[in-house]
This record gives sequence, structure tokens and C-alpha cells, in this order.
Amino acid sequence: MLYFENDYDRGCHPLVLKKLCDTNLTPAAGYGDDEFSERARGYIRAACEAPRADVFFLSGGTQTNAVTIGGLLRPWEGVYAAASGHIGLHEAGAVEFTGHKVLPLPQRQGKIAPGELRASLEGFYADPNHPHMVFPGMVYISHPTEYGTLYTLQELEELSDICNSFNIPLYMDGARLAYALAAVTDVTLPDIARLCDVFYIGGTKCGALCGEALVFPQGAPERFLTLVKQRGALMAKGRLIGAQFEALFEDGLYFTVGRAAVELALRLKAGLEKRGVALFMDSPTNQQFPILENGLLKRLAERAAYSFWEARDADTSVVRLATSWATKPEDVEALFKVLDNLRGGV
Amino acid sequence: MLYFENDYDRGCHPLVLKKLCDTNLTPAAGYGDDEFSERARGYIRAACEAPRADVFFLSGGTQTNAVTIGGLLRPWEGVYAAASGHIGLHEAGAVEFTGHKVLPLPQRQGKIAPGELRASLEGFYADPNHPHMVFPGMVYISHPTEYGTLYTLQELEELSDICNSFNIPLYMDGARLAYALAAVTDVTLPDIARLCDVFYIGGTKCGALCGEALVFPQGAPERFLTLVKQRGALMAKGRLIGAQFEALFEDGLYFTVGRAAVELALRLKAGLEKRGVALFMDSPTNQQFPILENGLLKRLAERAAYSFWEARDADTSVVRLATSWATKPEDVEALFKVLDNLRGGV
Amino acid sequence: MLYFENDYDRGCHPLVLKKLCDTNLTPAAGYGDDEFSERARGYIRAACEAPRADVFFLSGGTQTNAVTIGGLLRPWEGVYAAASGHIGLHEAGAVEFTGHKVLPLPQRQGKIAPGELRASLEGFYADPNHPHMVFPGMVYISHPTEYGTLYTLQELEELSDICNSFNIPLYMDGARLAYALAAVTDVTLPDIARLCDVFYIGGTKCGALCGEALVFPQGAPERFLTLVKQRGALMAKGRLIGAQFEALFEDGLYFTVGRAAVELALRLKAGLEKRGVALFMDSPTNQQFPILENGLLKRLAERAAYSFWEARDADTSVVRLATSWATKPEDVEALFKVLDNLRGGV
Amino acid sequence: MLYFENDYDRGCHPLVLKKLCDTNLTPAAGYGDDEFSERARGYIRAACEAPRADVFFLSGGTQTNAVTIGGLLRPWEGVYAAASGHIGLHEAGAVEFTGHKVLPLPQRQGKIAPGELRASLEGFYADPNHPHMVFPGMVYISHPTEYGTLYTLQELEELSDICNSFNIPLYMDGARLAYALAAVTDVTLPDIARLCDVFYIGGTKCGALCGEALVFPQGAPERFLTLVKQRGALMAKGRLIGAQFEALFEDGLYFTVGRAAVELALRLKAGLEKRGVALFMDSPTNQQFPILENGLLKRLAERAAYSFWEARDADTSVVRLATSWATKPEDVEALFKVLDNLRGGV
Repeated sequence: MLYFENDYDRGCHPLVLKKLCDTNLTPAAGYGDDEFSERARGYIRAACEAPRADVFFLSGGTQTNAVTIGGLLRPWEGVYAAASGHIGLHEAGAVEFTGHKVLPLPQRQGKIAPGELRASLEGFYADPNHPHMVFPGMVYISHPTEYGTLYTLQELEELSDICNSFNIPLYMDGARLAYALAAVTDVTLPDIARLCDVFYIGGTKCGALCGEALVFPQGAPERFLTLVKQRGALMAKGRLIGAQFEALFEDGLYFTVGRAAVELALRLKAGLEKRGVALFMDSPTNQQFPILENGLLKRLAERAAYSFWEARDADTSVVRLATSWATKPEDVEALFKVLDNLRGGV
Repeated sequence: MLYFENDYDRGCHPLVLKKLCDTNLTPAAGYGDDEFSERARGYIRAACEAPRADVFFLSGGTQTNAVTIGGLLRPWEGVYAAASGHIGLHEAGAVEFTGHKVLPLPQRQGKIAPGELRASLEGFYADPNHPHMVFPGMVYISHPTEYGTLYTLQELEELSDICNSFNIPLYMDGARLAYALAAVTDVTLPDIARLCDVFYIGGTKCGALCGEALVFPQGAPERFLTLVKQRGALMAKGRLIGAQFEALFEDGLYFTVGRAAVELALRLKAGLEKRGVALFMDSPTNQQFPILENGLLKRLAERAAYSFWEARDADTSVVRLATSWATKPEDVEALFKVLDNLRGGV
Repeated sequence: MLYFENDYDRGCHPLVLKKLCDTNLTPAAGYGDDEFSERARGYIRAACEAPRADVFFLSGGTQTNAVTIGGLLRPWEGVYAAASGHIGLHEAGAVEFTGHKVLPLPQRQGKIAPGELRASLEGFYADPNHPHMVFPGMVYISHPTEYGTLYTLQELEELSDICNSFNIPLYMDGARLAYALAAVTDVTLPDIARLCDVFYIGGTKCGALCGEALVFPQGAPERFLTLVKQRGALMAKGRLIGAQFEALFEDGLYFTVGRAAVELALRLKAGLEKRGVALFMDSPTNQQFPILENGLLKRLAERAAYSFWEARDADTSVVRLATSWATKPEDVEALFKVLDNLRGGV
Repeated sequence: MLYFENDYDRGCHPLVLKKLCDTNLTPAAGYGDDEFSERARGYIRAACEAPRADVFFLSGGTQTNAVTIGGLLRPWEGVYAAASGHIGLHEAGAVEFTGHKVLPLPQRQGKIAPGELRASLEGFYADPNHPHMVFPGMVYISHPTEYGTLYTLQELEELSDICNSFNIPLYMDGARLAYALAAVTDVTLPDIARLCDVFYIGGTKCGALCGEALVFPQGAPERFLTLVKQRGALMAKGRLIGAQFEALFEDGLYFTVGRAAVELALRLKAGLEKRGVALFMDSPTNQQFPILENGLLKRLAERAAYSFWEARDADTSVVRLATSWATKPEDVEALFKVLDNLRGGV
């Protein structure tokens, strides 16, 4: 069996596991005050070129989104997200559970268009009824997006400018940030730290067993630790995530993990294109979205795990193929062979 | 340095870590549908003698309490807890964040007295104003309690009877359940599964890196998985907790961990009593609460980590000494030696 | 000055005020247990042909929507509404504040199309990711809609059938129900009580000073009074709303109010059409939406109060003209005269 | 029948009703922007000697408490209240529904003792675990208290000082403020406006049909109107409350109402004392709490309405007798006669 279903189907990168084994018997303080978390914070500040950053380690993405969005919004505010944004679709209403509305904007290849954001904000304040409406209080973007696409530096700068001029924070969901940083892109981690008010560096889908590093480049809001505790997101053994992020950032492993997966994803993409397989989205990251015939997909499922994405028409579907630190070059070659056999045999 | 500060200062039991290492490269489904979680559920059902039980794995105790209490209560209901209960004091208002009140009852050595529970329930319904009040909708108990004490089987049976007669669930917070089961007690895990409507088997403080197993002995309420997701408590790599609980329950490791820690805690208790040190609470589990002079404590802190619990008077304080799977018999002996030296030197 | 801005710019219908005056010194029980409320409930049950109905009196529409929707939904559920629905746009996130998502469906002249509702429900359950999504748990419709339009009996029956087959309640916001019942329509109040699981009969915009009558035709859910109290919607002097609804329903005043306003609105509509003024929406109720030139509107504002609705293009806008119990036939004639003068003068 | 059950069993003071009648046909803007509300705000600012005050009109007390407390607290904060405080007991968990904990302090004749408040605040910050606890973020007092008692000016000044030094707002629930201001007291309305950060002037229980005036002496927090809307507390016909408060404050009616009721309550108190009836609480306001034999109470109920307060022992109970604008001197005399007859007859 070949595994391209997602980027979280194996445990963690061997070096992350090694760190957990090496540190297992070291006594450490609880609730994130341990030495591993402290060192990981230092590495992350350095990688972000954000020496004043506050960093919190939470266990998962939905949790991190809900704590951050619910914690930063004021009671009368909601959060903008692209219509395809994870918080609006696949987090079971976690933001609404905190009492806040997700305000959808059109998705353009999974992204928010800066012009549409500005128009929506201006339209809101121009509407005489706006005191009876949910105030836009934050902008949520995912990078890479749910479709694997990336914001350009110019787009991020425009979004940041708009947020600044309306005095609302720009928040980036970086569940798969390693793959964004490893792609052909003009956006660096320091750019993100400079342009976003808060963002998270995803661990779970980028080589860790669990954990996301939430970064406030200019410092965290008051009592954020208590808020994290209140929302059930403060781990007693904070070391578990701290040590993993220490492993990911002490020697650049996070970037290595990203590069390896993106390289294989691009090889996969090139091979699909060479074979005339249409792609739903032009993704430069570790998720590729080929459009394949349903009959072929049925037989493919016996040999390779993929994710069903959406029906395209009566006969074809979009599926997702994802690479990760656990994908090997020979897995990609084997997948091509399977596909060639299946397509030859159609 | 000697470590008696708490039971979560080291990583995890070596056999738990071994399981994570052994299974690291095995592909597995996400969100708790993996084979490790599935096997762990089977072992837990067997240990509970509850073949119809539904089991969910969540990452921490506050989270588990908030999801369970907030998820099961109806909008107009609150939850009873002893005044010393963790949910009322040290979870930063996590239950209130879900919209529900914690209804305090007097604590009797950390426990709810069945008679006082019954009187409160009867008093509530006898009060003609009760439609304007928060309805009692659940009873929360911790076992061991925050003071290390245990309910007797008769107490649990009475609480269960009262809950049944008022048709409200009995929920047990088992953050340190391993130590309750290992103590001199007439309460077994199947008793708990028979008498509680829902309870959790703590992992974080009983040898795991993270994770709690939430057990509904008679089956879970509708759509509980979606609720877990909505509250940010569903891990993408559910395998992380599943595999740990597989390790803890496939060969009885959970009970071994509990017994070892309780044995050392009782040795510690006996040694303290022999030395004439007063104990704040008569605890049969892994947490002991000696009352010591503040001057001695100051010097003790240089040699042994303990937790400050509360000031007793101007000169003495209650502290907590906890044992765990990581405590060694020689640590206890060494602690005695340190204490003898310090007290000899006073 | 002529007043067509809305249907709540005057106090209350004189007969409603008379009832308040006549009953002012009569002692009565608090919190809705008074004789006026009790009689009003009886009249409403009779008018609805729903002898088992439970009726609650709340003070306003947003409050009634939030209490009902937030109170009936289970934690993992959201509520469908047309994209133009009041709860999704102009209630400041009141539903989200209760922890629930508003799930938008396309608006078709302000209405939900039954076929689109069914397709959305079927699509939801067919999506393998639906356990990670907000479950549709209720359907919210407004009748008349925010555009003054009405559901047909067949549409209501289809919506009701769909809701029944998915076992979710159909909830009707009847803020302006008097005008729906008075229009040319095949939908009666007993039809509404038969087809909806819960609905409210609007008072504030139909002749009362305040108050809405929330009707559960088959009986209210458990402890609903406590829920109303908890959400701040239980008035100490429940008599205030009870007596007004007694006045509105003891002799059919509610229907009289509706008929008078609709008759004048249709006269207005006919006059506008005769004058060649385009209407944004073909409304059979008390709100009419002419499209007028911005220059004319500016001058009109000096003589007649109207509501700006939305910009149509650079030169024209949609405005709302509303009638109520307080509108007189000569007001309509006077408005025509003003318009003719202004248009003659352009 | 004689009516002493409560102070909200009749409609409204005749002058309030007259204002509603006189203004009924005057067109006015919605949502509190009407001329009546605007004038009422001016009268209230003047009465409070708080020219910068912002004033909002809400429909009831529980609603006002929940909007104010839930709206001002930050997510990690709770509100102190005396154990007998209305928000902690008889508002069905309305504060908790907004996500916040009510932090009980001991009640001393219904009041918070300044020394105990200070000790609790200092103890909180001295506790090393406080980041895991609910932060005290506001102090709620009722004046008169639920027992009819009053804070002295010195107590209010101490509470205000403590709140200032901990930078948390002092909030006064003035559901029955008219009676506090009319009692023998050294506390004036300008004192309250000077010492409280926010308070409400109760209408419902002081002569209005409904409505409370929420006063922020130093100006309201940002977007408070939207918050009021979101919590379902913004009335379309804001004029209904505005006009009533105009009537209550344009010529001092609010004070007249208070004085008349307190005078009769004190006459009642003196008469009870003269008759040797023990009083549960030494109340200087419109609520008196005699302790009477259960047998007598049973027969009294046939002649006079009172409120059961609490059982005192097997044979006696505390009941509440309340006066209001609708109580007449002859009612008090008649009550004495009934009591004398009944007691003579025992």
C-alpha cells in the first residue's frame, strides 16, 4: 500500500521522536514553564526574527484557532475568512462556540483577495445599519490555504496594510506552514512575523506528534495563559510539545521536513501533468489535487491511499494526494507505476 | 535534587514511550479511527467490564471536564462539585466558559457527602423560586480527590442512587485514577463503570505523556465526536493517545504504575508519621500532605522539589509530596535523610 | 411630515393603550403568571386552532430569535436561514453569541427554496467529513420576509415535510405576521401552527408597544421558562405584554391592524406603479420597495420619512415605505401629491 | 385583599401611564434614538450630576445585569457578589451563560464587607496558582440589597477605593434604587455616580411598567449599543422606556415614589415592632421581613398577599412585605387590623 492520503498518517519525524526519548527522564516544570519549551521559544523567535515574540504551544489546530480567535475578538466582533476557510467549514463551529461569527468572503483559489477585503470593510462602515451588525474584528487566512495555494508577499502586505488601517489583527493559520516556507515563494518566516499580528507554526501536519506554536510577534495579549487554560488547551506536560518544537527548530528540521515533502509533491505534480492528468488547483505545496475518473479511483484505492475531495462531474472526482516527511521518492515512482498500469488497463 | 513536586514532572513510563517508538512508522487513520485507539478501547472496556462502553481520548483533564460537563448539561443546568473540586477552583472558569454554573457543596475531606447532596437536591425542588434558579444537572466528583482521599464503595453507591433518583448523571474526574485503584479500597474499576454515568481514566498524571480516556459505560450521547471536535479536543493524530493507552492497558501497566507509586507514597507517609510530622489529610494515595515548619521548608527546597499547598499558620505550611512511576525507593530514603539532617540541624 | 419610514415609529394602537390603562391598577402575579397573559394565551390558542400550544411573551424580536434558536439547538447544531435573513445580518450576531452558527442558504425573493434546503441537507449527510461540520439543526424562515414577500402554503408544506424527514424544527419569525395574514395569501394562522414547530406572532411591529408571542403549537420544551429567564427575557411585569396581546386577540384587533396597513400599502403600490415607479420586489404586504432617483429622494426626505434600503446604481436607490395601524388613507394621498410635485419638477 | 407581596404587582404610576398616553401618537426614531429617551438621559445626567454619563435603557434587571457584567468582563474574569446576591441565586445562571463565573463573598446583612473584598483580592494575587484561576474582574453590589439593607457612604467609598486600586469596575444593581435614595441614608445619587463605574436605576420595581436605566457616569465602553443589540436587549420602540424615565425624572417623580413607599414601609415596621413581631433584618427600605408563626401565615394569606422568604424553624417563617407607589396608608392600617385579629385569635 502507498500512503498519500494526508500528512498526518504516520507518527513523527525520527528526530522529533529521538528528542522525546532523550529527554524523557529529565524532570521539568509543568504548564509550559519547562526548559524545552523555553529553548524552543528562543529558536522560534530567532527564526522569525522577532525577538519580542511570545510563543504558546497548543495541542491542535482547531483548538489554536478557537482560542486565538475567540480570545482576541471583542464580544461584538466576528472574523473574516475565505468561504473555503477551515474555520468556516471543518471545525464543527468551534469559533461560533466561543460566541463569534465567521464572516465569509469569496475565496479566490482558497485566498482572500485584498481588494474584496477592503471593499467589505468600507461597505460595512458605510452601511447606516452597521451598529446592528457583527463588526469585522479580525482577518483569518490560511497559508498554505486549504487548496495548497500560497499568498504572495504583495498580497500579504496589502492584507496587513488593510488590517492596520482598520485596526484589526491579521491572523494566519499555519497548520502546514513548513510546506509554504519550502515552496517557490517570496514569503519568508520573518515576513510572516512582520506582517501578521498572530500566527501559528503547525507541528501536527509538519512532522510532530501533536502541537502548534502560536506566535505573537509583538507580544501576547494580557493573561493569554489563563485564557489558554480556560479553553482546555494548556497541557500539564507542556514539555511534550516544547521538546518537539525544540527538535524542529534547533537545527532547521522544520525547513528540511517542508523541503523534502514539497520536492516530492512537485515531482508528483510534474508526473501527473506529464501523464495528462488535469489538476484542480495549481498548488506549489505538499498537497496536489488531480482530477481522475471514478472507475480508476476505485481501483487505485486498493493500491494507494488518497483523500476524496469533491465530485467534479458524474464521471470524475477531485482527490487530494499529500506528501510528508514520511514519503519516500520511491513511493512517488511506485504511484506513477500504479497509475500507468491502471490507465493502460482502462 | 529529589523530585516529589508532582506526578507529571517526567515524560512517560518507558513502556509507553516504547509503544510510541514501535508504532511510529505505521500508517494509521486520523481523528481516533486508528487501530491503536481501537485496541485501547477494547482493553478499557474489558478492564471496566463494560462491553458497551464508548471511549474517547482527549488530551488533558481541564479539557475533558469542560467538554463532558458542558456537553452533557442542558442549557438551564449546572454541575455540583465539592468546594475543593478542581473544576471550581483551578480550571480558570472552563466550565463557566461553556455557559454553566458550578454549584458548590461543602467539601468533607475533599468529598461530597451523599446526605448533603440529597438535601441540596430536595431543597432545590422544594424552593418555590427554583424555576428562576440554575437546575442541578450533574454531580462532579474527583477520585482520588484533590486531597488524595477516596470515596468508599458505599459512598459511591449512595451518590449513584441519588443521581438516579433525580435523573442526573454522576461524573468522576479520574485524573489520578491509577492511584485510587491501587490504594487500599473497596472500589474497583468495574464498580466505577457500574456506578458512574461517565468518568475519565487519567493518563497524563498516571504515566502517559498526555491524554485521558473518557468512558461512557452505557454508550456515548449523540454526536459526541462532533462536540469533541467543536471544543478543540479532537486530535488529528489520535494515535498518539490511543497508542499510549494501548500500552497502559494491554498488560495491566496502568495498575502497575499505580501500585508502585502508592507503595512509595505509603512508605513516605509511614516515615513522616514515625518522625512525628503531622499530616494535613489522611491520604491513602500517591499524594501526601505533611505540615512542616517554614524555615525547614526553605532549606528543604534546595534539596527536594515539593509543592506548596497552603499556609497553616504563621510558622508552618502544608506541602504536597507526590510519587509517580518515576519515583524510586531510594528517592524516598534520600528524602528521609534530608529531612532528618534538616530537622536534626534545627 | 409624512411617516412611512417603518411600522414602529408611533406608540401602540389606541385599543392596546386603552387595555393598559384599564388594567393598570389591577394587582397581578409576576413573570407571566398573570390573568392577562393567561387570557391572551387562550385567545392565541384559539386563533391558531392549537389547543395544546404553549405561549411565552418576550419583549423583542432579536431576543425571541436568540432564545428560541439558542435554546432549541443542541450544542453541535446550527440553523439554516436565507442569506437575507434577519438573524444572519441585522441582529449583531445574537445567534452566534449563544454558540451556534447561522448556515446561509441562497435567498429567493427573501425566501428559502424548498428544493435547495433539501439538497443542502442531503449533501451534508452525504459528505464524509460531516462529523467535523456544524449539523443543520433547525430551519429559520421569516414570514413576511425581510423583503415583504410571503411563502405560499405549498412552500410551507414542503419545508415542513423536509424538516420532519430530517427531524429538525421549522421556526418562523413572524415579526410582521399581522401583515402576512392580511395579504392575499393561502396561508392562515392555523396553517402556520400546523406546519411550524415554533413561531412567533410579532407585536412590536404590529400595533403593540413591545412584545412578541412565542408559540409552541405542540407544547414547549422542558424548562423553557427557566431558559427565558436565563437569557434575560422574562419580564417581572409580564402583564405588560400579556395585556397587550389580550387586546390584540380578544376581538381580532391583530387582524384588523394587519388588514388596514396592507390595504394602504397596496394602494401605495398601485399608485407607484401607475406613476411608472419600478418596484424592487413584488411585495403583497405592508412594506413596499420603490426604486427612485437619488436627487428626488433627497428632496423627498424633507416631506416624507422613508428608509434607505440599498443603492441600486449610481443614480437610483431602493427605499422602503412602510404602513402601519397609524397610517391614514390621506397620508398615502399626500405622499402621491408630494411625489408628483417632485417628479413634475425634475 | 391587601397586596404586600412585592413592588411590581400593579401596572405603573399614573403619571408614567399619562406620559405614555400623551406621547402615543408622536412619531419617533427607533432603538433609543427618540426624543423621549434623549430627554430622559438629560434628566438622569442632571440628577446624577454626571454630565458626561452615557445612559442606556434596557427592559429588565436580569437582562441589564447579564449585558453589563458579560459585556464588561474580559474572557478570563469573573464577578464578585455577596453570597445572597441576585446574580448568584435568582437569575437562572444568566451571568454564567455569558461565560463568566460569579465569585461569591460572604454576605453581611446582604452586603459585601470591604475588608473581606480586599482580603480576597490580595489573597488571589498572592496565590501562586492564580494564573490557573478565574481573575476577579468586577464587583457587583445591590443597593438596596436583596434584604432591603443599604451600604453606607463610607462602605461605598471603601469599595470604590479597593476597586480602583485593583483596576476593576464597581457595578451597582439598583433594581430598587428609588427606595435606597428615599431612606435615611448618607448616600445620594451623585455619590453613587461618583463612586460606581456603572450602575442601573431601576424602573420596573419603582413605578414603571418595565425598564432600567443603565448609567456609565464616565461614558460607556466602545460599541455598547451593539452589545445591547446582540444580547437581545435593544428595543425597537425604545421610546417605551425612554418616555417612562422622562416621566420619572422630569419632575422628581422617581424620588416621590421612593419616599412614599419607604414612609409606609417604616410605618409598617414600627407597627410590627410595636406588636412584638421580630424582624429578620433591620431594613430601612420598602421591604420588611417579619418572622411569623406558620399557622398565622396560613390564615393571613386569605386576607393579605405576602412573599414567603425562608423557613426559620419548624414553626416560624420569614416573609417579605413590600410597599410601592400603589400602597395606600389605609392598606397598612388594614394589615395591622388583620394581624391583630389573627393574633388575638391564636
